Amino acid sequence: MSKQVLVIHGPNLNLLGTRETDIYGSKTLDEINKELVELGKKNSIEVIPYFSNHEGEIVDFIQIKGENADALIINPAAYTHTSVAIRDAILARQLLTIEVHLSNIYKREAFRQTSYYHDISEGVIMGLGSDGYFLALQTLITRLKEHS
Amino acid sequence: MSKQVLVIHGPNLNLLGTRETDIYGSKTLDEINKELVELGKKNSIEVIPYFSNHEGEIVDFIQIKGENADALIINPAAYTHTSVAIRDAILARQLLTIEVHLSNIYKREAFRQTSYYHDISEGVIMGLGSDGYFLALQTLITRLKEHS
Amino acid sequence: MSKQVLVIHGPNLNLLGTRETDIYGSKTLDEINKELVELGKKNSIEVIPYFSNHEGEIVDFIQIKGENADALIINPAAYTHTSVAIRDAILARQLLTIEVHLSNIYKREAFRQTSYYHDISEGVIMGLGSDGYFLALQTLITRLKEHS
Amino acid sequence: MSKQVLVIHGPNLNLLGTRETDIYGSKTLDEINKELVELGKKNSIEVIPYFSNHEGEIVDFIQIKGENADALIINPAAYTHTSVAIRDAILARQLLTIEVHLSNIYKREAFRQTSYYHDISEGVIMGLGSDGYFLALQTLITRLKEHS
Amino acid sequence: MSKQVLVIHGPNLNLLGTRETDIYGSKTLDEINKELVELGKKNSIEVIPYFSNHEGEIVDFIQIKGENADALIINPAAYTHTSVAIRDAILARQLLTIEVHLSNIYKREAFRQTSYYHDISEGVIMGLGSDGYFLALQTLITRLKEHS
Amino acid sequence: MSKQVLVIHGPNLNLLGTRETDIYGSKTLDEINKELVELGKKNSIEVIPYFSNHEGEIVDFIQIKGENADALIINPAAYTHTSVAIRDAILARQLLTIEVHLSNIYKREAFRQTSYYHDISEGVIMGLGSDGYFLALQTLITRLKEHS
Amino acid sequence: MSKQVLVIHGPNLNLLGTRETDIYGSKTLDEINKELVELGKKNSIEVIPYFSNHEGEIVDFIQIKGENADALIINPAAYTHTSVAIRDAILARQLLTIEVHLSNIYKREAFRQTSYYHDISEGVIMGLGSDGYFLALQTLITRLKEHS
Amino acid sequence: MSKQVLVIHGPNLNLLGTRETDIYGSKTLDEINKELVELGKKNSIEVIPYFSNHEGEIVDFIQIKGENADALIINPAAYTHTSVAIRDAILARQLLTIEVHLSNIYKREAFRQTSYYHDISEGVIMGLGSDGYFLALQTLITRLKEHS
Amino acid sequence: MSKQVLVIHGPNLNLLGTRETDIYGSKTLDEINKELVELGKKNSIEVIPYFSNHEGEIVDFIQIKGENADALIINPAAYTHTSVAIRDAILARQLLTIEVHLSNIYKREAFRQTSYYHDISEGVIMGLGSDGYFLALQTLITRLKEHS
Amino acid sequence: MSKQVLVIHGPNLNLLGTRETDIYGSKTLDEINKELVELGKKNSIEVIPYFSNHEGEIVDFIQIKGENADALIINPAAYTHTSVAIRDAILARQLLTIEVHLSNIYKREAFRQTSYYHDISEGVIMGLGSDGYFLALQTLITRLKEHS
Amino acid sequence: MSKQVLVIHGPNLNLLGTRETDIYGSKTLDEINKELVELGKKNSIEVIPYFSNHEGEIVDFIQIKGENADALIINPAAYTHTSVAIRDAILARQLLTIEVHLSNIYKREAFRQTSYYHDISEGVIMGLGSDGYFLALQTLITRLKEHS
Amino acid sequence: MSKQVLVIHGPNLNLLGTRETDIYGSKTLDEINKELVELGKKNSIEVIPYFSNHEGEIVDFIQIKGENADALIINPAAYTHTSVAIRDAILARQLLTIEVHLSNIYKREAFRQTSYYHDISEGVIMGLGSDGYFLALQTLITRLKEHS
Repeated sequence: MSKQVLVIHGPNLNLLGTRETDIYGSKTLDEINKELVELGKKNSIEVIPYFSNHEGEIVDFIQIKGENADALIINPAAYTHTSVAIRDAILARQLLTIEVHLSNIYKREAFRQTSYYHDISEGVIMGLGSDGYFLALQTLITRLKEHS
Repeated sequence: MSKQVLVIHGPNLNLLGTRETDIYGSKTLDEINKELVELGKKNSIEVIPYFSNHEGEIVDFIQIKGENADALIINPAAYTHTSVAIRDAILARQLLTIEVHLSNIYKREAFRQTSYYHDISEGVIMGLGSDGYFLALQTLITRLKEHS
Repeated sequence: MSKQVLVIHGPNLNLLGTRETDIYGSKTLDEINKELVELGKKNSIEVIPYFSNHEGEIVDFIQIKGENADALIINPAAYTHTSVAIRDAILARQLLTIEVHLSNIYKREAFRQTSYYHDISEGVIMGLGSDGYFLALQTLITRLKEHS
Repeated sequence: MSKQVLVIHGPNLNLLGTRETDIYGSKTLDEINKELVELGKKNSIEVIPYFSNHEGEIVDFIQIKGENADALIINPAAYTHTSVAIRDAILARQLLTIEVHLSNIYKREAFRQTSYYHDISEGVIMGLGSDGYFLALQTLITRLKEHS
Repeated sequence: MSKQVLVIHGPNLNLLGTRETDIYGSKTLDEINKELVELGKKNSIEVIPYFSNHEGEIVDFIQIKGENADALIINPAAYTHTSVAIRDAILARQLLTIEVHLSNIYKREAFRQTSYYHDISEGVIMGLGSDGYFLALQTLITRLKEHS
Repeated sequence: MSKQVLVIHGPNLNLLGTRETDIYGSKTLDEINKELVELGKKNSIEVIPYFSNHEGEIVDFIQIKGENADALIINPAAYTHTSVAIRDAILARQLLTIEVHLSNIYKREAFRQTSYYHDISEGVIMGLGSDGYFLALQTLITRLKEHS
Repeated sequence: MSKQVLVIHGPNLNLLGTRETDIYGSKTLDEINKELVELGKKNSIEVIPYFSNHEGEIVDFIQIKGENADALIINPAAYTHTSVAIRDAILARQLLTIEVHLSNIYKREAFRQTSYYHDISEGVIMGLGSDGYFLALQTLITRLKEHS
Repeated sequence: MSKQVLVIHGPNLNLLGTRETDIYGSKTLDEINKELVELGKKNSIEVIPYFSNHEGEIVDFIQIKGENADALIINPAAYTHTSVAIRDAILARQLLTIEVHLSNIYKREAFRQTSYYHDISEGVIMGLGSDGYFLALQTLITRLKEHS
Repeated sequence: MSKQVLVIHGPNLNLLGTRETDIYGSKTLDEINKELVELGKKNSIEVIPYFSNHEGEIVDFIQIKGENADALIINPAAYTHTSVAIRDAILARQLLTIEVHLSNIYKREAFRQTSYYHDISEGVIMGLGSDGYFLALQTLITRLKEHS
Repeated sequence: MSKQVLVIHGPNLNLLGTRETDIYGSKTLDEINKELVELGKKNSIEVIPYFSNHEGEIVDFIQIKGENADALIINPAAYTHTSVAIRDAILARQLLTIEVHLSNIYKREAFRQTSYYHDISEGVIMGLGSDGYFLALQTLITRLKEHS
Repeated sequence: MSKQVLVIHGPNLNLLGTRETDIYGSKTLDEINKELVELGKKNSIEVIPYFSNHEGEIVDFIQIKGENADALIINPAAYTHTSVAIRDAILARQLLTIEVHLSNIYKREAFRQTSYYHDISEGVIMGLGSDGYFLALQTLITRLKEHS
Repeated sequence: MSKQVLVIHGPNLNLLGTRETDIYGSKTLDEINKELVELGKKNSIEVIPYFSNHEGEIVDFIQIKGENADALIINPAAYTHTSVAIRDAILARQLLTIEVHLSNIYKREAFRQTSYYHDISEGVIMGLGSDGYFLALQTLITRLKEHS
């Protein structure tokens, strides 16, 4: 059975590529997900993307899909700074996690300069736009191959 | 096409008018919404009220209805102090926003004396009970006429 | 005898309407005061406007005029953040108070994001320019009628 | 009509008994709930257990079931530290509340060492694993009998 | 030889039951101690109660009696917030400890909202009046049986 | 020439004895001042009382009258917490100072629990109502006699 | 039966008058106590002085003697900043309390600039050396006469 | 018409040169002002000195004289740390400002180590005694010539 | 002329691959640099690696080599938390910068959880070991091609 | 008469050498004291060791024995962080003091990383186990000889 | 022998006049140094300018050249906020120091708003560009003449 | 081969014995080093002293000499409070370390009351002047013998 990598996009990321395209790039979330799935396939990894505006739904998803998954790429967006529940779900499923942010959160408002995920993530990539997702997946592919 | 103003009521506001009527007045949320819609109609403004206890649903609502709306009156209630996701949705839709609180949040517990909306709102009205909604709508009506 | 509402404008507000008119509007303080007095008259309320750059004079005014007044609209301007003396005068006269700010103080410097009046005011209106005064007076008119 | 006690389990508590059984014990949430209901029955108290990962659903539940309930046992889990909305719902329903935590939250991360429920709860029990629920129920049974 | 549980009452708790009986209940400290001893006896546990207003005496007691004891119930009262010496004595004797407070310390003055015992106690029970002692003893009885 | 003691009353203290007489006593500021002057006379000390709502006027007074005075009793009222200018005037005139507060400022709002005068005063008396002025004067009389 | 006033001197105050007499005066603690007792006698008040270096002994004293006493003068010395137990004993006995400090604690180290007694004392007198005790007793004599 | 430079001296600076001459120099405020005016004249700049102990009067002065002035030298003295009103007046008049302090405020009490003027001043000169005024004026003369 | 990317390794990174190889991998700094240079070559980018334990030398290097370089990969190691001088050199040379850390600095001591580079870097990659350098270079190659 | 050095051991240090001997060494407090007394004797210094769990007793000891002593070695243990009373006793007796800690307090809990003795001690030795006492005594012997 | 004034320029100041000339002026560091030396010469003062990016080199320079120098002008640039070593060197050489900053550091990032030199400098001049150096030298020339 | 102990003296310590000899003693750094080397020799320990004003050079030294050394005595002087790089070098070389300070850093400025070395050092000795080095070496000699 092939290894699984979950990719979770937090609130408001569904609007990606439809506004402020000069900042965040013109790729929509669907296009990013498609490419991630394809990159996974080429490396015999099943990539399972997920988006929700709802904290509880993201927790549900991690509980259910996280049972068999091997790793997680998460861009918690607004929940970066507020959700202990998502943090706890990740801890409960003990997923190898890479935290991704499109923008550099340290260039933004003071309240965005903390993360409930920094200290439970293997690595953090931020400020590199949607490239961050692909760098993260690439890294996970290498790591999962090493451990298989 | 007439202009649209969204009116969002955060968690527990559905209980309005059914308890502690000496503090919050005896008007129920339905009555307030009805009057707001009527006041809108008289001024050729479509008022779209919404209530939810769910942070994610409020984000969904702002994303969907906010696409065509011109302005927002929001009483985030408990989410005033905790929801970056709703803040981000408002920013994404770039709505002209007035923040309303029934009570004066600065007379309450220390943790209620911060707001994720103060600095992204055009104005803030608090402590005036349900009158706050009507003062806000009145102001938006004037502003929207000016800009039309 | 008709009810009385004091309207106090703190330091530098005398410059209103003479500079930065794109931000604060082109109404001068005199014009605002005139309109407030008229709106009061129509509702059988005596509106008594006052301006001073001097903390002590504002305290004197509240002590003297506050003895017979029923309510207060105050825009403490710079004294919002520094004057306990004005706060104490309001408390001593036990005036029903609405705090008004032309701009949204929570969009400004950190030291402006506190107020000695928030917790002793019935309500707070900010960010709505000179409209704030009229919304405040309108609310007080309603309240004073209810209690008379 | 018999008295009612609500028992609310916050996010990720559904995983109880299925992992880290050495720490949290091997009882599943279902087993705990069953025993609580039975203990209630023996004492003529209706125990109504509820679990959700969704903040909004917990608020809904408290609003609806809390209307007729007499007391509440709540283990808010991750929402201990982040949900003002659940707090407000409890306050609105004015339920006699005991806050329970399986682990001693003061032995954990700094951000877990605050609670939005401590100051609105009658009592707090923590660090005693699933025993905490039974101690809480036992106490409420005694109290409810005293007041009936 | 039967197992031993120490029960320590900190300063001013000797006044229990003689004043503010509506808040703390009408049981005196002697009555509570008697009942605890009896509950212990029924379960073949020796309960050794102790009271002192003196920090040093409590340290002495823990050092001497703690050498052979198996567990500790402590209500440090005022020393909750100020005594590192008592904390150190408990650590030195490595006693299985449950911290009990009659009132919910998080509803009281800010300086009472910290405890030198939270992070070295197995569990904490507070706000349940003198019931807290019995819930604690019950729990320890179960635990001590499990480990014997 | 007899020694001089200045007695300064800060903002709003002119209202003393005319309201909240159950808290502050029924003596007016005039009555207090009169009695202080008399007590001074009996001891061959000239007492010079002064009241102002204006920070600047109090500074002026200290500069002018402080040149020949030997000591100062000051109740800075609201200026306790905000006026560095009055502090500087006292320092410049190097007056033997006793700070008096009618109420115990440490039982009041957090922002009242600091004083710009504590560390430059010989002594502080608070919470004893208008008695505080007389205890202060009595003490100064003794001290001034010792040093004459 | 005559009224009773307790006078408690905290740790190290027994050294008074034997060293640093230029600062604290040359009166010994015994001399002060004697004079206080005499001043009491003249006014038909029984003054009961007490000194201890032990926190626990001071608590014992307040519990025992405080049962029949009417008022308390306390100079907690080092325990000003560290003893919640003494505070609790005073609260339990509900004594009318005046806190006295020989020196002005606000001119000293930062950790001395807080007091566990400020907010439970009727009044505070500091910086006036041993005169502080007499001013306090004088005030209590007046108050106790008023209420008898 | 010649350019104008305002020179404002805050509270207590009128005492300059009359006391502590070893620290602040023996020049009186009048002498300093005279020399500044003369230095201005030589460079065809009108220097307008002003002193007041009253915050409100300084605000008045800036509003009135600032309308035609080109630059400001201000030593706010005690108002450095407390007056937002003076800050606002300077901002309203948009004066090129140099902040001067006779002493180095960072060698003094903690509360003096903040300034409401640092971030709105072109430059700051402190610790150089009355020389600071002349260095400031010299700089402004150069700047005003450059821009004329 | 080909584009240039500087790669700076801060203090102690020369020890890489020679100790704690299970954590940091067994690649030495030389090997990493060699591979980076090769990856650059394949993409017609000149990669210039540099290591120093000296803050001043790193500043010198950025000033000199940064004049013609297009981008910078920097792992400031200990200087992450302490060097404003290196920050200023990067700002002066306005280099497109990616900050890399081998370990996740948010899992380490509190003083390591701040960075003088976060807010001036395009992106940040941490916790991915020496892979971080290659992900950073890959990203810069793409960006530099886009802008050429 | 020979010089005297007091050696005070704070709470729980009597347990030394009887538990955790791998950390603190296997020497008991008695053995340490014996050796210290002997080392003193060889150098014609009288060493007077003292142990107590009671803050008040330590204060008593310093007052009484400190009158004739020349120096003090103190390991305040738990009272390091909580006792102002012991600090005051040392100050009153003006003893040349060396503070000793067996462990390095800066490797322990946050609340242990402050000391009421650091700033009144000549020197501090910590982390060197019972050697610390001997290093301290050695130093004092040298110093006392120099000054005799 | 003529008096000596050291002029130290901290890291990155060698880039002065070669970039951002609109902000910092078009004078290079060499030109400034030349002019300072000349101004010195005219007044019989030897000015010795020095620049380094290396903290250690600046310390070396102050130790060596400071032995015979009379005064110091220092613009520590980035080392303003981070170097205790340079501070200590200045203290060791007891140089009369004026701290100069080209820009107003209080208009910049929060971490730049502290200085290790403010409290050991005679005076501070900031925000006046390269003029600051000349004002500082002018002041020192006057002072050195006074004291010679 | 004999064991090696490194002795590192941080910035400005080369001035030892040449100034402020009443505070720091009249021994020069050379004399101290010589004596330390001799004390080592007598005990068959090679002592290698080193001094530098340069943070980077100290890091270099620890990396190179630390490879074969067994222990380290370090007086980081100013780098106590600012150098993470030196800390990291010590950690990398895993040296048994004793931190020495001539003066008691807790009697000095607030910014000196933290150390990057406290928590990675076996022990800390401060306030005992140059004696501290010898006490440290003595301790290390004992320890190294025990482990050899």
